[in-house]
Amino acid sequence: MDCFAVTYRLAAGAPAEAEELAAAIALEDTVEIPRDVVPTGYVEDVVLGRVLGLEQVGDGVWHARIGYHVDAVGRELPQLVNVILGNASILRGVRAIDLAPDAELRARFPGARFGAEGLRALTGRKTGGYLCPVVKPQGSSSETLARFCYLTARAGADIVKEDHGLANQDAAPFRERVAIAAAAVARANAERADAGDSTRALYFASIGGHGDQVRDLACYARDAGAGGVLLMPGLFGFDAMNRLAQDADFDLPVMAHPSHLGPYVLSPDQGYGHGMLFGQMMRLAGADISVFPNHGGRFGFSPEECAEIASACRSGAGIGRAILPSPGGGMSPDRLPDMRAQYGSDCVYLLGGSLLREGEEVGAAIRACRAALDGDD
Amino acid sequence: MDCFAVTYRLAAGAPAEAEELAAAIALEDTVEIPRDVVPTGYVEDVVLGRVLGLEQVGDGVWHARIGYHVDAVGRELPQLVNVILGNASILRGVRAIDLAPDAELRARFPGARFGAEGLRALTGRKTGGYLCPVVKPQGSSSETLARFCYLTARAGADIVKEDHGLANQDAAPFRERVAIAAAAVARANAERADAGDSTRALYFASIGGHGDQVRDLACYARDAGAGGVLLMPGLFGFDAMNRLAQDADFDLPVMAHPSHLGPYVLSPDQGYGHGMLFGQMMRLAGADISVFPNHGGRFGFSPEECAEIASACRSGAGIGRAILPSPGGGMSPDRLPDMRAQYGSDCVYLLGGSLLREGEEVGAAIRACRAALDGDD
Repeated sequence: MDCFAVTYRLAAGAPAEAEELAAAIALEDTVEIPRDVVPTGYVEDVVLGRVLGLEQVGDGVWHARIGYHVDAVGRELPQLVNVILGNASILRGVRAIDLAPDAELRARFPGARFGAEGLRALTGRKTGGYLCPVVKPQGSSSETLARFCYLTARAGADIVKEDHGLANQDAAPFRERVAIAAAAVARANAERADAGDSTRALYFASIGGHGDQVRDLACYARDAGAGGVLLMPGLFGFDAMNRLAQDADFDLPVMAHPSHLGPYVLSPDQGYGHGMLFGQMMRLAGADISVFPNHGGRFGFSPEECAEIASACRSGAGIGRAILPSPGGGMSPDRLPDMRAQYGSDCVYLLGGSLLREGEEVGAAIRACRAALDGDD
Repeated sequence: MDCFAVTYRLAAGAPAEAEELAAAIALEDTVEIPRDVVPTGYVEDVVLGRVLGLEQVGDGVWHARIGYHVDAVGRELPQLVNVILGNASILRGVRAIDLAPDAELRARFPGARFGAEGLRALTGRKTGGYLCPVVKPQGSSSETLARFCYLTARAGADIVKEDHGLANQDAAPFRERVAIAAAAVARANAERADAGDSTRALYFASIGGHGDQVRDLACYARDAGAGGVLLMPGLFGFDAMNRLAQDADFDLPVMAHPSHLGPYVLSPDQGYGHGMLFGQMMRLAGADISVFPNHGGRFGFSPEECAEIASACRSGAGIGRAILPSPGGGMSPDRLPDMRAQYGSDCVYLLGGSLLREGEEVGAAIRACRAALDGDD
């Protein structure tokens, strides 16, 4: 029978314990009843998850591969997440580390609208990594934030992304801020075009508001001239992002921010593997760009975990189009050569708060970053 | 200056390390820039989080109390969650364990519509715990599920709750299932009333669909006769639940299910304390009933963690009305006397898959549970 498969890392001692845990996941994430009362026929044969494989991979560590039929899902992402790691997220020692979609899952959840390739066309940047200054801090006026947008866009930024903490506060309400910032980036792009530049900056507005307003706010941003939106699946749900990505009337790329998602990866025994969460799940949910904290910054991801994320964003085996990893979290311009060596060209390089030290001279810093990223300095 | 406060448990060695981590949280969850570039004036004085207190409470364990101004939040719950544990969720060794709201936060986020007291009026149950069979498994037809609803409601169940895995699958599509199940419970209630019973069963429909359809589906369920809705904040976001709870045109209680939330509590060093997540955060997000896995069932919560949850659901210091804890996760009727001793009357006692063993005789099991819960068997 056709099914998609999720591989879980199990922390378990004896083989019997691992077998029991694997069987528990298969029950828990589908029928959620004791095995002996699972109705025969359709429920047992199709809906119930099935253990496809179980192997010991280390001391007290097992990999269990569990198959699920799309009938247990339906066509909405919340229930797919339920099946992948709903109640099983509460079982001790269960960590989802790989999603292997079947054709039917791919058909129901096609993934990113643009992906890595699409971003080349949207920005006009034919080669090289993308430079992405982050607009902050919250509490600043819309005009102050827009000035930063203009200066960095004018100097050659590929994406000008709002901080995820810019929501809808009184200091810079969403609609006011987005209109002013989008206009500032449009002015910078017009000047770049006049100067013969074939690339342009995309302004990504941080969606600030209620979950049920995401589409309206995203469309408002688009109509105001934004080139993309930033969304936090850890706050709005993965489905909110996917709904935008699959909306026939919406046509901008979506950047996913990891806010509130830390606990899903920080314990080795629970949650998701780094590559699965920031690569596979983000692709499943339609992100074109997946932000994550780079190693060596303010957060504690390892180089290997970051490599796993980049690989999952790009793998041909994932859902839909390959997408762009976007390492950030306290990266400064002097880190760029090292980062380029690790992540290469299909990558959105975030530049954070350290840029604020430059004030009105931030354009010079952006140009220096561009040179560092292109390796010709 | 007025502020609300979040207490974090820090895993840190030396005092300097704890101080650094506390300061990092205050920055990370508000301005997200290095301390030396925080603009003076409004941003530094009001928006920036401030460390209100830091004390060592054990070997390598500290409590940091951080104050935030509502200006850093605005009026939407996603940004409040961002401030409470957004990027800080990715910092190693940071666990939010207490929310102390100020008057302004209480005004913006008033909490549950009904709470524990309101459920007494809605069900007509003046004293004693609430008995809540769970309708499952997914894959069953709408008619099969409705039959279970009828039998358990007729026998005296207070709440008949759909399993969170009943979403919108082909076997029992949401709208079809909810209409048939609500009618079945209405019939049982009519028969109870005819028999002189002053209590009634509330049918809680599991919201299956997309995040942006939550309100429409909830209103559909209400119009079909449902007495409440089940929602998973781990899939739809806390804001989706709060929007229903604050919607002037919606008037049913909301039950929160913990699916996908496990990683937020399972590591002692990350996420949320049990009481904060399943008590304080659920109250903040407007839940009237908070489901969590009881100790001794399929999941690994301890008796102390469960007591912490019940206490946070009921504390006078929490947001809005006291709400009902709802322990479940593999509870069987023979556990009820013990559970009653722990949780008392203001509690929704979930009865899971073991009821399916009773088939058409499930009514007798419900009556036995009622007797066990009332202590007169």
